[in-house]
Amino acid sequence: MQIHSRIADLRAALQGRGQSAGKIAFVPTMGNLHEGHISLMREARAHGDTVVASIFVNRLQFGPNEDFDKYPRTFAADCEKLAAAGVDMLFAPTEADLYPEPQEYLVEPPAIQHLLDGEFRPGHFRGVATVVLKLLNIVQPQVALFGKKDYQQLMVIRNMVRQLALPVDIVGGETVRADDGLALSSRNGYLSADERREAVRLSAELRKIRDAIRAGSTDYAGLERAAVAALDGAGWKTDYVAVRQQANLLPPTAPGQALVVLAASRLGTTRLIDNIEV
Amino acid sequence: MQIHSRIADLRAALQGRGQSAGKIAFVPTMGNLHEGHISLMREARAHGDTVVASIFVNRLQFGPNEDFDKYPRTFAADCEKLAAAGVDMLFAPTEADLYPEPQEYLVEPPAIQHLLDGEFRPGHFRGVATVVLKLLNIVQPQVALFGKKDYQQLMVIRNMVRQLALPVDIVGGETVRADDGLALSSRNGYLSADERREAVRLSAELRKIRDAIRAGSTDYAGLERAAVAALDGAGWKTDYVAVRQQANLLPPTAPGQALVVLAASRLGTTRLIDNIEV
Repeated sequence: MQIHSRIADLRAALQGRGQSAGKIAFVPTMGNLHEGHISLMREARAHGDTVVASIFVNRLQFGPNEDFDKYPRTFAADCEKLAAAGVDMLFAPTEADLYPEPQEYLVEPPAIQHLLDGEFRPGHFRGVATVVLKLLNIVQPQVALFGKKDYQQLMVIRNMVRQLALPVDIVGGETVRADDGLALSSRNGYLSADERREAVRLSAELRKIRDAIRAGSTDYAGLERAAVAALDGAGWKTDYVAVRQQANLLPPTAPGQALVVLAASRLGTTRLIDNIEV
Repeated sequence: MQIHSRIADLRAALQGRGQSAGKIAFVPTMGNLHEGHISLMREARAHGDTVVASIFVNRLQFGPNEDFDKYPRTFAADCEKLAAAGVDMLFAPTEADLYPEPQEYLVEPPAIQHLLDGEFRPGHFRGVATVVLKLLNIVQPQVALFGKKDYQQLMVIRNMVRQLALPVDIVGGETVRADDGLALSSRNGYLSADERREAVRLSAELRKIRDAIRAGSTDYAGLERAAVAALDGAGWKTDYVAVRQQANLLPPTAPGQALVVLAASRLGTTRLIDNIEV
């Protein structure tokens, strides 16, 4: 696996492959890779001839009181996992490579950026959209893959790509879960052993809501309230549990809409998110 | 010359050329082409193997009280001029092609968008940056050319391209002028015969300032005031006359900085802009 930190080097390496690079499939990450990421790498292989991954902890998408500084950086282990997964090329820029000057030109997403996670993480989706646009411009893949665990992020990226006419297909990868149902996440590493045991409650509450809706319930507000009560009663601090339309993440307005249940909640100092499509 | 209005058709035509398309040089315009545009087409030929032009009057960069509806549309004549200039392909989308849904993902430029023309045209440079990004994503040229007459626009585009890591070189083309010095502009067509004779004053005042600075004057505010007085005394309504640094369009802060003199003023209902590098 080739590793490049400089934009010009990555571009030269990709151009050097010329036609033999074929279709490029790209998986951007913030590193600290787990099986969720690796499943995206494997799916990328099915979509492309050359698989490019990136590792970059993007300061622009972290709020001032968030965990940018303590976000886990495990570069050597990540490289081993990527190489074992058959990734051809890793782009691992430093901040000086990707932001040699303060980033002043930003992609401004519409109202969706202020919903759900956006309400609790102001500026987060602007930072995500901007760095993803920049990475897509650098790698110029034909396909890019993002996990469904970050459901709102995937929607922002899909919409940005369509609205800005970027020449890339966006593919969403299914959330990978631990045996007990917890969605894999780099932030799970922050959890104590006790918290890790408790963490299963988040996905369990989402499944409860999904099952209730499947069984015919349309009392979305009641289902949401019950889940928040269950979580907060067990010591969580919940930002939101929300039943939303898959199409636009707005509340359901009519029967028959495809729905998704999303949640974000803090266990101790660790903020976890998850979602389940109904 | 091929003409395409649909994004997919243009992309297919460019991809159909494959390797033989070579380097693509792109000149986006709003049509109503004059010799200023055509000089960019000729320069594009020197930079690329395939020259692509676009014609699209971009509603997004017009204010609610501006001249979007009456902006001159002269498609047939434009096509003749482009073909005669050796342009290979014209992209001429309708609004339904380029904005099939309301454009909600926008490129937000930094403070420069509120200076000079941006002060008088709120949202203008956001609209320019967004449509140019979109056109660049569609055409995927190696080189794109923009006229220096829109000096601030050229700077916004250069900075956007650098900051978003777009894989394209931006080339600025020199302003083409009528024999009396008036910068060629589609909006010159709005002028009555009397106004057209008067219009020469704008470039004349800019040259006066340039010459005074060359001769050693550093009283920029005084030079600006004198030009505004001369214009407004002759019936113009001046938005600004400003001596600025070429590097960032901010006021000069130290001797030896490369300067540019920029102006925008209205003659009757026609708003003209011009600039001269010192």
